[in-house]
Amino acid sequence: MHRSNGECFERSISVDPAGATAGGASDFLQLDMGEAPAGGRADWLAGQLRRAIADGRLPVGSKLPATRVLAAELRVSRGVVTEAYRRLGEDGQLAGRGRGGTVVVAAPVTAGGEQTPHPGRAPGVPFGAGPGADVFDALRAAPARIDLSPGVPDLAAFPRAAWTRAERAVLAELPAAEFGYGDPRGTLALRRAVANWLARYRGIRADPDEVLIVTGTAQALGLIAQVYSRDGIRAVAVEDPGSLGVRQHLAHWGVATPPVPVDEEGIRVEALRASGARAVLLTPAHQFPTGVVLGGGRRRELMGWAADGGLIVEDDYDAEHRYDRAPVPALRSLLPEQVCYAGSVSKLLAPALRVGWLLAPAAYREAFVDAKRFADLGNAVLPQLVLARLMESGELERGLRLLRRRHRRRRDAMIAALADRLPGAKVHGAAAGLHLTVTFGAGPGADTELAAAALARGVKVHPLSWHAQRPYRQGLVLGYAARSPGEIAEGVAVLGEVLGSAVPPG
Amino acid sequence: MHRSNGECFERSISVDPAGATAGGASDFLQLDMGEAPAGGRADWLAGQLRRAIADGRLPVGSKLPATRVLAAELRVSRGVVTEAYRRLGEDGQLAGRGRGGTVVVAAPVTAGGEQTPHPGRAPGVPFGAGPGADVFDALRAAPARIDLSPGVPDLAAFPRAAWTRAERAVLAELPAAEFGYGDPRGTLALRRAVANWLARYRGIRADPDEVLIVTGTAQALGLIAQVYSRDGIRAVAVEDPGSLGVRQHLAHWGVATPPVPVDEEGIRVEALRASGARAVLLTPAHQFPTGVVLGGGRRRELMGWAADGGLIVEDDYDAEHRYDRAPVPALRSLLPEQVCYAGSVSKLLAPALRVGWLLAPAAYREAFVDAKRFADLGNAVLPQLVLARLMESGELERGLRLLRRRHRRRRDAMIAALADRLPGAKVHGAAAGLHLTVTFGAGPGADTELAAAALARGVKVHPLSWHAQRPYRQGLVLGYAARSPGEIAEGVAVLGEVLGSAVPPG
Repeated sequence: MHRSNGECFERSISVDPAGATAGGASDFLQLDMGEAPAGGRADWLAGQLRRAIADGRLPVGSKLPATRVLAAELRVSRGVVTEAYRRLGEDGQLAGRGRGGTVVVAAPVTAGGEQTPHPGRAPGVPFGAGPGADVFDALRAAPARIDLSPGVPDLAAFPRAAWTRAERAVLAELPAAEFGYGDPRGTLALRRAVANWLARYRGIRADPDEVLIVTGTAQALGLIAQVYSRDGIRAVAVEDPGSLGVRQHLAHWGVATPPVPVDEEGIRVEALRASGARAVLLTPAHQFPTGVVLGGGRRRELMGWAADGGLIVEDDYDAEHRYDRAPVPALRSLLPEQVCYAGSVSKLLAPALRVGWLLAPAAYREAFVDAKRFADLGNAVLPQLVLARLMESGELERGLRLLRRRHRRRRDAMIAALADRLPGAKVHGAAAGLHLTVTFGAGPGADTELAAAALARGVKVHPLSWHAQRPYRQGLVLGYAARSPGEIAEGVAVLGEVLGSAVPPG
Repeated sequence: MHRSNGECFERSISVDPAGATAGGASDFLQLDMGEAPAGGRADWLAGQLRRAIADGRLPVGSKLPATRVLAAELRVSRGVVTEAYRRLGEDGQLAGRGRGGTVVVAAPVTAGGEQTPHPGRAPGVPFGAGPGADVFDALRAAPARIDLSPGVPDLAAFPRAAWTRAERAVLAELPAAEFGYGDPRGTLALRRAVANWLARYRGIRADPDEVLIVTGTAQALGLIAQVYSRDGIRAVAVEDPGSLGVRQHLAHWGVATPPVPVDEEGIRVEALRASGARAVLLTPAHQFPTGVVLGGGRRRELMGWAADGGLIVEDDYDAEHRYDRAPVPALRSLLPEQVCYAGSVSKLLAPALRVGWLLAPAAYREAFVDAKRFADLGNAVLPQLVLARLMESGELERGLRLLRRRHRRRRDAMIAALADRLPGAKVHGAAAGLHLTVTFGAGPGADTELAAAALARGVKVHPLSWHAQRPYRQGLVLGYAARSPGEIAEGVAVLGEVLGSAVPPG
């Protein structure tokens, strides 16, 4: 049938210059039997395989196609392929593994198969002032026994079984067309589930059509920077101290981050007003890194600032985690037209899922959909549907309750260890979240030295000064959520030894 | 234990102004029992619930927390919660669903629960000249019986069972730390699997450290535009005709796309040279939309152009799909330092997975890692590991063989239907890929009118003129891979009727 059609359309198909081949070509190594001499096909094939092993296209451990399959593709008798494989077997380069197929077991010593190290990926962590764009990658890659970096929940609590069950259920009923290109805003199922979640937990009333599914707060920051800077907003004021990562992201996208000081009530709104900034990024529920909750008076002042045209970016990064304080409704619930709200599952489930959400002010909504479309055409579909199921079934809520109990025990373990091992340090922001901050009286540079010394002894922490743009107290930002009470005690003990008696109490 | 620590650190914890609550606050609706009058707690709670239902925070169908759970959070007796639920049950707003819990079943008629339609999401598809940024979203959202848009493989062949099996295996052995933030380049397992795949199928020798995992070609284009424009490259020449989507993406990122004509041998390199462009984007294995394979002579000319400093972006979008022609090795295999290579699983498995890869020239590699980090911190981990497993186990290869047989039958069905129903039209580019192009002699505007008329009769196609920057032949781009032979015959019959005898043969 095809052949006759081929003839019918001969003239037009001939615009493919490679034309129809009589046969004999495989995608595997792009082998073309047309190149083989008539009498020496097995020979030629063996030579091609040797070359591919020598130059690394077939690395040790890779599997060759079944002889039956390759013979069919090359349109030769199976004996030709068997013979070629046999010759390389004699050389010691291939081995039959029974049902495991034929595998490359050795490459000639001349093969340049060495791994090139990742350029610029030095083993050390640059703890000094002015940490570079890849400082968090470097810290993550650094080996350490106990990781007390802030920012991750208890990853051992990830609901693996529930995730697998939900994914199986999703795959069982998903129409085939849903595997195609989708809505750049995200699937309706997840936008609905997120709208319900935000209504229940964050006091936000949003229509599913207002929810934009993104790959996390990092992407949200990039989209915000793009959309706002197209609107002439080239600076977003940030809390100081405030997240280094957030500043790095905004700076990468060409947005300046003028600092506004934070005190015991949160950001100082009169300083924000004095800065002249048109937009500000806040972490009102649990300020990073101090852990301060934005006070009632400040919230009112901020609303006044926003009423005069100010735009707020609300990074609600760990609002669902609280221990000994009342819940704080999101600013977005009060000021939907002035607040661009960003949240994610990174602290609820796992950062590795790369799922978050953004609620834009109505005036910017279409611009954000465009930005998301041209960033990546929208999030992957399956994880969205699995997550929607976990949210709607109550599984995520149950998981959060479990997480909170575990995190609280770990928080208590850290506070106890700090009281014991760093009695002179002051603890901040422990009523909620996944981290706390300790400060101590010491001169500039002390905390980066301390963090470097701790890492040398196998304990990862963030120096507080990383997260401050202007001179601030020396201290450490310590995550407790991802570590067991025993690890926390051990890690804090190392910090105590490193801090020693050299640093006076803060 | 916590309490004593709390006392220890009282002074410092007091930086949280909300302070430690004696109890009585829930995240659910941010309820705070402190606000309830002493004697009327059930009353107060019922009122809060009514308000949340009325203002849409608790939509119809949403589930309330179990009375036991909510009572514990609010630190009240369970009777208080039961009583509040009972009152709303009497109103007809809540109903007990046994083990299904308590569910909102009705909202007062005053509730403003209407869905607001997505602004700007008009039902019609703008088929006219100058299609807008959301034209593909609009086309996708338009209802149609038979979708012959190009660009998707047979989605019904997605290996759901193999995917679930592989994901279960991945989750069974994944260390908890892998649920955290990861390498922005992607997981080593997938970078290795992709390097092996490219070696076997595309003749490319790459180290896993050279592979950047991205969310697909759309993201790759954005990263390329960002990195190259920072290097002063503000224009990337493109094939004409060539993909409208690609041009829209580059334009969004501020990169101009000067057109270079394509003939039967592919892009005209002397015209590229004359354009003065420093970079060009190509689809050498199966030019979109014409289906032309870049001829040997043109490949050599192009290598000369690149040797003089030209940069090539190779969009290898459907290279693994071929029927009656020899495989074509990737340009990247010949010119690793001049070619930025982009591929994805969108045509191998499903666009909805949003996974692709990019191989940058060494000089730009670090800049691409930075761009990916600040785009989204890297792809989600689980799908990467599942995909790596499917690639390394041979499952993807088997799937591709199956796909190719199915696609070929569908291609043949389309050619047969076209011969029958559009005998005057010329067929192009059918030796490979997931689509073909037909042209016919007609004046400007004829193909958009034809596509609009076809859509009105339930058949989606792309007018060829969407994909041409300069006047070109009138025609249609027709995807066959995702439709059954029966649907293809039916869809082409509609096209034949719509085209009628009004259009003379091309």
